[in-house]
Amino acid sequence: MTILGKAKFGELTPEMEAVASDEGIKAKQLVKAIGEGRVVIPLNNQHRGLKPIGIGEGLRTKINANIGSSPTKADVGYELEKLKAAEDAGADTIMDLSTGGDIDNIRREIIKNSKIPVGTVPIYQAIIEKDSVVDLTAEDMIRGIKKHVEDGVDFITIHSGVKRDFTKLIKKRLMGVVSRGGSFLMKWMEHNRQENPLYEHFDKVLHLASKYDVTLSLGDGLRPGCLKDATDKAQLSELKVLGELAKKAFDEGVQVIVEGPGHVPIDQIKMNIDLQKKECNNAPFYVLGPLVTDIAPGYDHITSAIGGAIAASAGADYLCYVSPAEHLGLPDVDDVKVGVISSKIAAHAADIAKGIPGARFVDDEMAKARARLDWDEMYRLSLDPTTAKKIREKCSPTDSETCSMCDKFCSVKINQELKDGK
Amino acid sequence: MTILGKAKFGELTPEMEAVASDEGIKAKQLVKAIGEGRVVIPLNNQHRGLKPIGIGEGLRTKINANIGSSPTKADVGYELEKLKAAEDAGADTIMDLSTGGDIDNIRREIIKNSKIPVGTVPIYQAIIEKDSVVDLTAEDMIRGIKKHVEDGVDFITIHSGVKRDFTKLIKKRLMGVVSRGGSFLMKWMEHNRQENPLYEHFDKVLHLASKYDVTLSLGDGLRPGCLKDATDKAQLSELKVLGELAKKAFDEGVQVIVEGPGHVPIDQIKMNIDLQKKECNNAPFYVLGPLVTDIAPGYDHITSAIGGAIAASAGADYLCYVSPAEHLGLPDVDDVKVGVISSKIAAHAADIAKGIPGARFVDDEMAKARARLDWDEMYRLSLDPTTAKKIREKCSPTDSETCSMCDKFCSVKINQELKDGK
Repeated sequence: MTILGKAKFGELTPEMEAVASDEGIKAKQLVKAIGEGRVVIPLNNQHRGLKPIGIGEGLRTKINANIGSSPTKADVGYELEKLKAAEDAGADTIMDLSTGGDIDNIRREIIKNSKIPVGTVPIYQAIIEKDSVVDLTAEDMIRGIKKHVEDGVDFITIHSGVKRDFTKLIKKRLMGVVSRGGSFLMKWMEHNRQENPLYEHFDKVLHLASKYDVTLSLGDGLRPGCLKDATDKAQLSELKVLGELAKKAFDEGVQVIVEGPGHVPIDQIKMNIDLQKKECNNAPFYVLGPLVTDIAPGYDHITSAIGGAIAASAGADYLCYVSPAEHLGLPDVDDVKVGVISSKIAAHAADIAKGIPGARFVDDEMAKARARLDWDEMYRLSLDPTTAKKIREKCSPTDSETCSMCDKFCSVKINQELKDGK
Repeated sequence: MTILGKAKFGELTPEMEAVASDEGIKAKQLVKAIGEGRVVIPLNNQHRGLKPIGIGEGLRTKINANIGSSPTKADVGYELEKLKAAEDAGADTIMDLSTGGDIDNIRREIIKNSKIPVGTVPIYQAIIEKDSVVDLTAEDMIRGIKKHVEDGVDFITIHSGVKRDFTKLIKKRLMGVVSRGGSFLMKWMEHNRQENPLYEHFDKVLHLASKYDVTLSLGDGLRPGCLKDATDKAQLSELKVLGELAKKAFDEGVQVIVEGPGHVPIDQIKMNIDLQKKECNNAPFYVLGPLVTDIAPGYDHITSAIGGAIAASAGADYLCYVSPAEHLGLPDVDDVKVGVISSKIAAHAADIAKGIPGARFVDDEMAKARARLDWDEMYRLSLDPTTAKKIREKCSPTDSETCSMCDKFCSVKINQELKDGK
């Protein structure tokens, strides 16, 4: 029986116990949330030695880092470096989106080395191995999924919501279909004049997911790729289908997450979260960004930190990082680090806003360290101690207790003097 | 007569005309907003050759960059480099917060070279020249202000709201008083057992501001320095005083802006904007950040971009940038650039959200360029073309039309094929 199956019966498993303890919530409350589909624990039953994490309502907002090769750069060693950088920076999960080199080997090495749950998008490899989008068969797609879940992948993105009759809805868009999986399937359907096999054969997907207790991440193949296309009919039509599929998965005991946009103006973010929660039976919501403007390539870790913080404050449970290389190239190790930290800032700020118990503790500790001018403690409490230290040491103050911003005119020193009655 | 004085009589001046045209709004509407204190044009009547800008309700959100020397580093050439970097990155105003070297010369050079309005905090220099906080006299403070406004400074921060009996309110704080001006004045009042001279002699400040038509930026000397201290009694008590002073200034025909926090959790940001607008007769609100978490030194341009975007969406009119060096040191030229761009992202995303007419035009142009894979146009429309280009060229795709993220599996290319019926 799957984790969800057990939770429906009120059974508390060791992984649930670990998550409840990690989150500081009551085990009973967690079992109920999982049993109702509001929380998932992505954990393939073949994947041993992993620290389980929970994603969903009432838990800390989680963040995912995408890594993986491309035809340009395919080196398993370099992908493991990215994995390490993501873990060190605080990623909660990793997705291997490899599209170049020995994809099987890269995935297996990532699974073997990762301390955090691993996700993939199996259709990428299926297409690459066929070297054609349109010649792929439904069997190829299912076989591709099978290979990944057998390897121990904890969650997979499946674009089952992209239906053939949505083609007309994307014609009005500025950016069309920007999801790789979504565009592959759109092309496949147009060419083969058939419905999306991942929708038609969703029961086969469920069968595999159930067997390996793999969590399904229902991909938003029609997510908006620019502000203009946000919350349009194409996106909302797909969301409705994702809601139906989420219900089906839930009924079969398969844990499910729903993926969301993309590029969304600030004033539409809350509405997007509310809609997803309503349409998808409160399944955990996994957003990519959202990016709140289109004009900042090179800084999209920032545009998405803004969107992610607002989304998570409004109830999104899981943020996919966006690295500074987004829209421009494959992220390198530094991009992965900066992307994860930016996403962590968004998640943490949102956790404080949504009242996750204890979330502000570390901020208060930082404030105390600042009031003491205790630099070592400030570094220790920082999301990125190395960078913080480097910046301060770049320019030495004449007064060694302070920093070069205010130097001897430091307001914190004056505070201390006031306190001491000097 | 001042700009405000004229606007009260419904007079349309050339600077108002320029701002209305720049913002794409009706001149009549702008005159009314200025005449009611909802919009200001910071422009010293001695400062010639400046492109006037408007700050306030219904206009594009403006951003300010702080530059200036410190005892550690005081080089007028370097400050002019920072000025240029801020202007190039899109800052709307500049503040010279110099506390080291030949402060008069640095300020005058910045005023001479700046294409955008210049602000200062005169009390810094007054204290430095006395080399003592407590020995400063009320006359010294007023004389300090006089020197700056005579030089042509367009707006000045005055911490007139920090009253003596607020001392007890800051005792409960984790971080006390983190504003430099605020802490100077607190120490002065404690030692001299007298009320804040900038409050007591506010009429003299108004007289000078009126004579040179300088805009007053009412400083929040008691702004919270950490999340825990946000929206506390000290902050709100000062805000009430700032509201009274804003009314006084308005009555005397002096344009006024009100400064705000600081460090504020996401869920308190809207409330802070609403309170300021209510207490301060809808005077333009100038926020520093706000920073939505305390634990990201080195990345506070991101924590404040999140807070700034939310604040401006909720009605804040003017964002003070925060550079990556915040809490760690004096920003260098690169920090200034990154700080301004981060702030610009926040302001622009907020302008789209609050429905500033035409704000999304450039985003839509970017979307069209992306859909065409027109890289030169994408760079041109970027907030930072140089950085965008550098990131893409770091890793060349095998398919030269795309980027190394998806390479030949580019969803945009598949879109084009779909459109062309391939």
